[in-house]
Amino acid sequence: MKGKLRVAMIGGGPGSFIGAVHRIALRMDGHYEMVAGAFSSSHEKCLETARELGISEDRAYPSWKELVEKESVLPKDEKAQVIVITTPNHLHAEPTIAALKEGFHVVLDKPLCTSLQEAYGIKKAIENSKGLFCLTHTYTGYPMVKEAKFQVSGGTLGKVRKIYVEYPQGWLSTLLENEGHTQASWRTDPSKSGKVGAMGDIGTHAFNLVEYISDHTITEVCAQLNSVVAGRALDDDGAVLFKTAEGATGVLISTQVAAGEENNLKIRVYGENGGLCWEQKDNNTLTMMPLEAPVQLLRTGGVGTSEFSLAHHRVPPGHPEGYLEAFANLYKNFAAHIRSLENGNSVNPLLDYPGIEDGVRGMKFIEAIVKNNAGNEKYTAV
Amino acid sequence: MKGKLRVAMIGGGPGSFIGAVHRIALRMDGHYEMVAGAFSSSHEKCLETARELGISEDRAYPSWKELVEKESVLPKDEKAQVIVITTPNHLHAEPTIAALKEGFHVVLDKPLCTSLQEAYGIKKAIENSKGLFCLTHTYTGYPMVKEAKFQVSGGTLGKVRKIYVEYPQGWLSTLLENEGHTQASWRTDPSKSGKVGAMGDIGTHAFNLVEYISDHTITEVCAQLNSVVAGRALDDDGAVLFKTAEGATGVLISTQVAAGEENNLKIRVYGENGGLCWEQKDNNTLTMMPLEAPVQLLRTGGVGTSEFSLAHHRVPPGHPEGYLEAFANLYKNFAAHIRSLENGNSVNPLLDYPGIEDGVRGMKFIEAIVKNNAGNEKYTAV
Amino acid sequence: MKGKLRVAMIGGGPGSFIGAVHRIALRMDGHYEMVAGAFSSSHEKCLETARELGISEDRAYPSWKELVEKESVLPKDEKAQVIVITTPNHLHAEPTIAALKEGFHVVLDKPLCTSLQEAYGIKKAIENSKGLFCLTHTYTGYPMVKEAKFQVSGGTLGKVRKIYVEYPQGWLSTLLENEGHTQASWRTDPSKSGKVGAMGDIGTHAFNLVEYISDHTITEVCAQLNSVVAGRALDDDGAVLFKTAEGATGVLISTQVAAGEENNLKIRVYGENGGLCWEQKDNNTLTMMPLEAPVQLLRTGGVGTSEFSLAHHRVPPGHPEGYLEAFANLYKNFAAHIRSLENGNSVNPLLDYPGIEDGVRGMKFIEAIVKNNAGNEKYTAV
Amino acid sequence: MKGKLRVAMIGGGPGSFIGAVHRIALRMDGHYEMVAGAFSSSHEKCLETARELGISEDRAYPSWKELVEKESVLPKDEKAQVIVITTPNHLHAEPTIAALKEGFHVVLDKPLCTSLQEAYGIKKAIENSKGLFCLTHTYTGYPMVKEAKFQVSGGTLGKVRKIYVEYPQGWLSTLLENEGHTQASWRTDPSKSGKVGAMGDIGTHAFNLVEYISDHTITEVCAQLNSVVAGRALDDDGAVLFKTAEGATGVLISTQVAAGEENNLKIRVYGENGGLCWEQKDNNTLTMMPLEAPVQLLRTGGVGTSEFSLAHHRVPPGHPEGYLEAFANLYKNFAAHIRSLENGNSVNPLLDYPGIEDGVRGMKFIEAIVKNNAGNEKYTAV
Repeated sequence: MKGKLRVAMIGGGPGSFIGAVHRIALRMDGHYEMVAGAFSSSHEKCLETARELGISEDRAYPSWKELVEKESVLPKDEKAQVIVITTPNHLHAEPTIAALKEGFHVVLDKPLCTSLQEAYGIKKAIENSKGLFCLTHTYTGYPMVKEAKFQVSGGTLGKVRKIYVEYPQGWLSTLLENEGHTQASWRTDPSKSGKVGAMGDIGTHAFNLVEYISDHTITEVCAQLNSVVAGRALDDDGAVLFKTAEGATGVLISTQVAAGEENNLKIRVYGENGGLCWEQKDNNTLTMMPLEAPVQLLRTGGVGTSEFSLAHHRVPPGHPEGYLEAFANLYKNFAAHIRSLENGNSVNPLLDYPGIEDGVRGMKFIEAIVKNNAGNEKYTAV
Repeated sequence: MKGKLRVAMIGGGPGSFIGAVHRIALRMDGHYEMVAGAFSSSHEKCLETARELGISEDRAYPSWKELVEKESVLPKDEKAQVIVITTPNHLHAEPTIAALKEGFHVVLDKPLCTSLQEAYGIKKAIENSKGLFCLTHTYTGYPMVKEAKFQVSGGTLGKVRKIYVEYPQGWLSTLLENEGHTQASWRTDPSKSGKVGAMGDIGTHAFNLVEYISDHTITEVCAQLNSVVAGRALDDDGAVLFKTAEGATGVLISTQVAAGEENNLKIRVYGENGGLCWEQKDNNTLTMMPLEAPVQLLRTGGVGTSEFSLAHHRVPPGHPEGYLEAFANLYKNFAAHIRSLENGNSVNPLLDYPGIEDGVRGMKFIEAIVKNNAGNEKYTAV
Repeated sequence: MKGKLRVAMIGGGPGSFIGAVHRIALRMDGHYEMVAGAFSSSHEKCLETARELGISEDRAYPSWKELVEKESVLPKDEKAQVIVITTPNHLHAEPTIAALKEGFHVVLDKPLCTSLQEAYGIKKAIENSKGLFCLTHTYTGYPMVKEAKFQVSGGTLGKVRKIYVEYPQGWLSTLLENEGHTQASWRTDPSKSGKVGAMGDIGTHAFNLVEYISDHTITEVCAQLNSVVAGRALDDDGAVLFKTAEGATGVLISTQVAAGEENNLKIRVYGENGGLCWEQKDNNTLTMMPLEAPVQLLRTGGVGTSEFSLAHHRVPPGHPEGYLEAFANLYKNFAAHIRSLENGNSVNPLLDYPGIEDGVRGMKFIEAIVKNNAGNEKYTAV
Repeated sequence: MKGKLRVAMIGGGPGSFIGAVHRIALRMDGHYEMVAGAFSSSHEKCLETARELGISEDRAYPSWKELVEKESVLPKDEKAQVIVITTPNHLHAEPTIAALKEGFHVVLDKPLCTSLQEAYGIKKAIENSKGLFCLTHTYTGYPMVKEAKFQVSGGTLGKVRKIYVEYPQGWLSTLLENEGHTQASWRTDPSKSGKVGAMGDIGTHAFNLVEYISDHTITEVCAQLNSVVAGRALDDDGAVLFKTAEGATGVLISTQVAAGEENNLKIRVYGENGGLCWEQKDNNTLTMMPLEAPVQLLRTGGVGTSEFSLAHHRVPPGHPEGYLEAFANLYKNFAAHIRSLENGNSVNPLLDYPGIEDGVRGMKFIEAIVKNNAGNEKYTAV
């Protein structure tokens, strides 16, 4: 290792949940250091965050545009190498494209953007950039999610037949957005969140997890989107029946009005020869359910797990790892790819991370469910 | 108590799963004694079961018709009082109606029958009979299911918004019916099972549980029924998006091809003020999830539970009760109602049991999902 | 089967917990019918219970002595064949010996009695009787406890090294015995319970489970017995370090003042090659923990289980069985042995039940821990 | 914040488990940067680790003595401020004392050292130093452990009566130390580990957790220490009956030969009014068991938790945190105290961390159990 990768962050000012998460995740393995930021549209708040983080004030920019512009002209061994974007959805595409144009590597929080059209714009920008692009679909960073993908692709379950994914939260059970709650406000505002609310915020995670673990492509959806809490503009709840190109069917549930639920993403996949189950609440366990043998519990770092998951944990089995470690795995792998690009060395193929294809798929999913929900046809193609 | 209620059983011969379950359930609390049976269409098998059960051979009838006919003319203090019917679905309506006509009380295994038309026939027979009628939707017999109903009706959750119910089994993951498996054979045979397979076998349980606990009426369904295993005539899998008259929405999952799953019926209900979760695997716990307080675990017989659930358990908290006790609760309550009818005493209103309305609702549900699945409209009225 | 085994019960009148449990257990599989009882020292209460159970008043005896005496002279095909004794501990030895002397089979609730001397008296009576004897150490009746015994004896774990057993209850956290609580009163009264309280009530279950599953013999104990609640005469709490003849060591915990606990008996056994864990709260699961392979969950009736446990369940996997079914297994197996004795047929060797040796071991254990606790030596021989 | 605290590490070279853990923990919240190290007694290995960490070679010292000596004479704004010591136990006291003498703050891995005499030496050094001292009893860093302490001290349980703590691991079930396993080798070697093996490695954690949560002082112990695996010099297993000055009793289990177990530290505390349970496997849940109300589940960051635990988590409830976050909490709080010392500002009293008193208590515990185990008296004073 020759020094850390220099990072600038757009978004993540006071009150941001996900900005703080990104910072912990990028620190964890020592591959990055934060050198600059446009943390808030309020310059005062931006400076406040910069001070807390020990970033010099001249690199606490009043706008993302200035950040991109000024960092791009700093000396090579001083300027940011990676730009992390953690703004609300409507402010994803523009800064991402600008950063890529200047050759920065970009880490963007999900969902990719607010429309398929924007998604294609970002895709094109990536193709024309020297920078790499990572979309933080966090859940793919869990060791036991990787193990699940490994088990499915290795044929443990046989041909996949059924996929159930659910992402229940309860925090939007009341009209929090009317009480000055930062997180709630932009997520429920169509001008910032896009065409969907809960389906964009957490439904895309669930969708991504299905396609990541199964390697199936969802081709048809039948969706029910609801705005359960009176006075809310976007969906805070929904369910989707789906079919895959490879012949499986399934159900996707995404809700933020399941009062009393925290954040229990859960996925189950069943094939001809058995099933598996992973849930975030017990993220270090992957339950394998063979058709003709007792249930087995695979554990993070534990005996019987694959090189794929073993490449993504830090401590011996029984020392619980969690959400922040999963997030950090995305950053760790992204760093490996950046260094590989710099060094010309090959990168360990196990060190994957989500990118533009995941983002485009998410946008296609959203457009399909919105269309299906509005119309009266039973299934809509994705 | 003045002696036990005399029972005759139709069905439940060698190899029957549910017949044996009914017998354990009716024995458990000492309210019934088995005196007669038409256990099998093979008279030899019928006699075999009669001998095992200590039933005299002259009351081991070669056919259900003979059973009804001959028992009905026995002396009053000798003849069966209750007829239990545990035959495959296509043999539900006719013997039920015949038994009711002769004034017997009837316990019938679910689903009610194979069509809504048959259902109305049974309903009419009940209206014209002195006999009482119980349909064994077993899961309503669990103490913590009763507690869930109590909590919802008492307003703990506020207005109900979301209901998720799932009933995953894996035992039909292969073409068992081609291997001489008794249970699989009739359940997958349209001539015996009716218009649906898994949806009738377990989907109706899930449907019944939704309406029992929430007291909502499902009015619209959007269904996907699948015959996942090649060569199977009926659905072995399905999912339903639904809406209720009272303004909730939900998802119902019923599958018998979730390879590796046993029998884990699970229901979650969320309202404005919190949610609850019950699953058969841990049937003595009801998880209460208030919106603004920590999760609470109510336990069978435990502190903080209602008179309703307390009327349905037998041993102190921590001594696990299960499926057979739930089943026995149906029989126990049915006995209380029969004796009340005999004595003219009133019956404790907590001692409920499922009946014809549950059965009719189940048939309506099946007809609606079959229609919806076949057509292209998004929602079909139930 | 030629008719049911006729049963008379001593004890089990109004307010008895364990009497009701015995009655459910003996009904469940249809092998017994209750024909007589001396349910209470109050004849009025005895008659009350008899009426509830549909037992004729002339066989509702005012005392256990009269029961034994009068039943023994009834005609052979009318008199009780089995006498079930569910009185407090101080009333175990005398009626048991009297019943055995008359050739009755006896089912006795644990613990065997109140001293080792009494235990030897019962043992001698058994040796001189034509009657069989069953001591209801319920927990050995659980299918997954039997599976655990099978796995250990079959060598799955290798040589056993460590055994941890714990039996925490919380119901005696206050001085219930001063509030007229029937169960609490006699259990905490040395004149009825014997030399120990909690150690006799539940500690002997834990001790029995250790020796049953491991087939080890506990030979040395170092005990701490406490009367935690002020004003209580007997131990309501205790812990024991132990060593076995076969070279293992372990810890036994038995407490009735673990406030908030229900009844969560749990045992773990570790050998050279792996461990296992069973707990009553999730009684249908046996967790197998191999040293060099993932954890496996064996399930009641499930794939990968042995003939031994499969001989002790009633419904397919995923239909939870519990405490009453475990209890009923003792009765079922005892019936098989009685019939075998009558018929001269051999009995399936898998159908075991606890007997006098378990009882004598329990008394030896109690005498050893009481001695150790009173003195200052570190270990005392059992 | 004015820049990060500069850290030098002693130990933690290639193959070290705990060195890597310390580094992740100190990075996580951005309060520290690693500037120097004496990572290994092999200078080559030291340089290898330095290179991986991006530390300049001139600060990769060949010995801890040189590190202390040379860092102490560097310019004030360049030299290390904190020295982290992660060497085997026999190399704890000397470098700690030397570092403190030079005024460095010290973070030392547990157990404190290898004898009570050494412990007093360290204590004296702390008293004479301007440096602060942290002993990494990691488990006190878990939010729900802090919540447990809060609940006990606030009286939720009433007077504490019973404490059960257990720390089962299985990784030393074979003679790993003979197979060149780094972790196993020094831990089982009396010249490096001290008078005890498992009791020092994990038993002291368990002991510390008891006293931390309950605020009781263990005053008497009755211990059984075993070397279960043939050929092992130190205990790999043990159990302790204990009494506290405040009138509670309990059991402590510590084993590394529970084959199949990972690392499941678990503690239960029961008082007059209820109990609580925390286990590392499900570290984000604290189970509260009131005597007269349903069980409640308190969750990291969740509703109903105290300021104390809320000060020690990073992400919303349902985003699992784990071992590394608990470890990082120690570093975070230690940083707050160091900055407070520098600034003269007061520190939030909730930001506690374990120190010398914990270490001295641990050594007293070890000396008492070793003495008790060797002799024949039942209880030994701590």
